[in-house]
Amino acid sequence: MSGRALEALEQAEVVVGYKAYIELIFGLLLEKEVMSSGMTKEVERCSLAINRALEGKKVALVSSGDPGVYGMAGLVLELLEQKGAVESLDLEIIPGITAATFAAACLGAPLMHDFVVISLSDLLTPWEIIEKRLEHACRGDFVVVLYNPSSRKRTEQIHKAREIMLEYKKPATPVGIVRNVARKDEVSVITDLERMVNYSIDMFTTIIIGNSQTRRVGRFLVTPRGYRL
Amino acid sequence: MSGRALEALEQAEVVVGYKAYIELIFGLLLEKEVMSSGMTKEVERCSLAINRALEGKKVALVSSGDPGVYGMAGLVLELLEQKGAVESLDLEIIPGITAATFAAACLGAPLMHDFVVISLSDLLTPWEIIEKRLEHACRGDFVVVLYNPSSRKRTEQIHKAREIMLEYKKPATPVGIVRNVARKDEVSVITDLERMVNYSIDMFTTIIIGNSQTRRVGRFLVTPRGYRL
Ligand SMILES: C[S@@+](CC[C@H](N)C(=O)[O-])C[C@H]1O[C@@H](n2cnc3c(N)ncnc32)[C@H](O)[C@@H]1O
Ligand SMILES: C[S@@+](CC[C@H](N)C(=O)[O-])C[C@H]1O[C@@H](n2cnc3c(N)ncnc32)[C@H](O)[C@@H]1O
Repeated sequence: MSGRALEALEQAEVVVGYKAYIELIFGLLLEKEVMSSGMTKEVERCSLAINRALEGKKVALVSSGDPGVYGMAGLVLELLEQKGAVESLDLEIIPGITAATFAAACLGAPLMHDFVVISLSDLLTPWEIIEKRLEHACRGDFVVVLYNPSSRKRTEQIHKAREIMLEYKKPATPVGIVRNVARKDEVSVITDLERMVNYSIDMFTTIIIGNSQTRRVGRFLVTPRGYRL
Repeated sequence: MSGRALEALEQAEVVVGYKAYIELIFGLLLEKEVMSSGMTKEVERCSLAINRALEGKKVALVSSGDPGVYGMAGLVLELLEQKGAVESLDLEIIPGITAATFAAACLGAPLMHDFVVISLSDLLTPWEIIEKRLEHACRGDFVVVLYNPSSRKRTEQIHKAREIMLEYKKPATPVGIVRNVARKDEVSVITDLERMVNYSIDMFTTIIIGNSQTRRVGRFLVTPRGYRL
């Protein structure tokens, strides 16, 4: 967590967030009004936070990683717009370390060159758009970072994504799979595009698929930037 | 800065970094051996840091943003490999907040949906590869984040990049330009693809170009993720 995020939590009178995240910071929340709810209640949580703020409270809305990457920041702005309150609220979006670079640090340095971030969740995005993006990511020889690769109900997407990538990238392309980054039970594995689906992949997993230059360096993954050594 | 980064700096006996960054953290460096050097001395700085570490010192090598995004992490691993010392050194890569999400937080929430990160520096990467990546980024309708958009010697790249993007994206596509994020003189501007080159763009600037859905919400930029409100 950044110093600024910690400070904002300390200053907040009301803290709103997804249950599992609130539990992780419980020690910081004594004497505060705490409102938590389950997954898929994002709209509800953001509305709650906005309403308390419009009543004059200092509210912190907690997101994992960076709040602007498939997080709550955009939703808050859209809801504020709907309420005609975008300009009236004193809003600060505090950036954080997103899963892509956190996972990359566990694996070595796979993001040293141009990369794309794609969510495999087709709950809010038509699958055809996700497919098209995967294709262009491969055709541009980008390193590919996958968020939301799989959940209890969505298990086919990661297999389909792998098949699309195999049309463009070699089966031996290095892949890093990182689960539960910065939590207990953090696990990271280096494998390849051929074998990646043999490992556990769930909704707390981030997957990084190399470009044509990515290679193993000891127990690490590196995408060289091209420095002459 | 994250708590872990601060702790690592406190524990270090030797701190190595680019001059301008060392100046920013000077207050933390009392009683430490400090080695700084200028831009384009990356290989030299990493070698220095590695040599002191191999001599048994606790060394912190400082990078801005996230060390794995066009930073020092990959270079350190490649140099360690060359010296046959990848496994012998106790190495920790500490992630940070990269310019993309820091700039996004200044602008609102432009990275709520799939995005690419591209460096416009052709010092280490052939321009044809950069062009190809820009094309596929546009054809996949990604939000595009540009690092290294311009420097004193490289001024044409941002104009060429804009022209490529104009072949695929509308001239009115929203663009955010953020300079000196988290420094004094932080400036951010929201404009569009047509007019973006009318603003100052230098080597401490990050530029975010929207996808087809990105829009202004008050003084903010938002790329909607598709929640039903
Ligand atoms: C809805 S997105 C939220 C991303 C978050 N705002 C960020 O910037 O990291 C959820 C996805 O982020 C990634 N993620 C979140 N927490 C993670 C963790 N602790 N370890 C690995 N990946 C994680 C996974 O891909 C997960 O499916
Ligand atoms: C060699 S890259 C280093 C990136 C860094 N490792 C990171 O993760 O942010 C340098 C580029 O990062 C971006 N950048 C670095 N510091 C910045 C700042 N303070 N404000 C805006 N952009 C910045 C600019 O695009 C700059 O040209």
